[in-house]
Amino acid sequence: MTARDEVLRRVREALGGSRGARPPVPRGYARRLPEAEAATRADVLALFTERVADNRAAVRHVGADELGTAVAAALWGREAKQIVVPADLPYGWLAELDGVRALADTPALDADALAAADGAVTGCAVAIAQTGTVVLDGGRAQGRRALTLVPGYHLCVVHADQIVGTVPEAVSRLDPARPLTWISGPSATHGIELRRVEGVHGPLQLEILVVED
Amino acid sequence: MTARDEVLRRVREALGGSRGARPPVPRGYARRLPEAEAATRADVLALFTERVADNRAAVRHVGADELGTAVAAALWGREAKQIVVPADLPYGWLAELDGVRALADTPALDADALAAADGAVTGCAVAIAQTGTVVLDGGRAQGRRALTLVPGYHLCVVHADQIVGTVPEAVSRLDPARPLTWISGPSATHGIELRRVEGVHGPLQLEILVVED
Repeated sequence: MTARDEVLRRVREALGGSRGARPPVPRGYARRLPEAEAATRADVLALFTERVADNRAAVRHVGADELGTAVAAALWGREAKQIVVPADLPYGWLAELDGVRALADTPALDADALAAADGAVTGCAVAIAQTGTVVLDGGRAQGRRALTLVPGYHLCVVHADQIVGTVPEAVSRLDPARPLTWISGPSATHGIELRRVEGVHGPLQLEILVVED
Repeated sequence: MTARDEVLRRVREALGGSRGARPPVPRGYARRLPEAEAATRADVLALFTERVADNRAAVRHVGADELGTAVAAALWGREAKQIVVPADLPYGWLAELDGVRALADTPALDADALAAADGAVTGCAVAIAQTGTVVLDGGRAQGRRALTLVPGYHLCVVHADQIVGTVPEAVSRLDPARPLTWISGPSATHGIELRRVEGVHGPLQLEILVVED
């Protein structure tokens, strides 16, 4: 018996009869928004907007026809000169970008290019009204994690039909095997001397465009 | 009884017992390429390439990483200044377009804008090796029909996995309820004095980029 076998034998022995048994999972939490808060879709959108703003992110509503202009205006307002985007971002989102250079992440941009960018523009997989969260899963128009975590500014486009009420509703739409990034406002940590510090693990500034069709 | 009822009554009477009966459909045609022509995927790609060229369209193979450059090079080669694209075209396809302005078709471009464009860039739904055909169905990265039928030049991006061997294989991948456009080389008609005239009902020039991943 090798040392490895011996260690594994002891682990199995210690686990004993409970091995494989699934402890009960409490499911008493609220799965949906209270009826009063979510009587209509407009209520859910309003809640999302309010909570995103609470999270110190900027949020704006735009019509589908205005999206290209709104993206350009957001970048012009920050005097962005160069941004990074996933290669499969819909072209229409960037169609009005006079004077801003968008680098597609294919082939994969190196760390210097990401760090030098004035921002990243992506979509999302799902958004949560109750917490003002956007969730990225690396799927369409979202790109890899480095794309949105390295640049200091993240402009995220959320279609109204991607907004659900609660975290459980969001989880039910997501695939746990995908690389999920949950974003509730600008990156912030209290891990440094218990003081809130923003922008350490991700963008210092988050801006969300809600597209209403 | 109105005149309409009377006409319908006579039609029903004339149809008689055969109404609703489905005549047998002969299915003796070849559904797949002969084994000798399609032993490997490379054979199918080679056949597609050859048939596209037979159809008097230009065709080139590019790696996924080179697509942005290949699209730009094709447009520069034609001295295109302004093109039209569906709003959901992946941004990476146009990321290298220095000096060419791409108009996204949202809100819908008017006829003058389409006619003034030096070309259109789209993807496709499926492509057929045996006939050198690309089929558009108005789905992702394809846009509405006017977008590819009005400008005089159409650059179509085909991913290798979109290429099937035969027409029956293509039909089985398509939804007959969608607006399908089947494109085998530049637009051509013999409807005018039985002489072949190109570019009457669609682009005079067709160029295809086959992306091999």
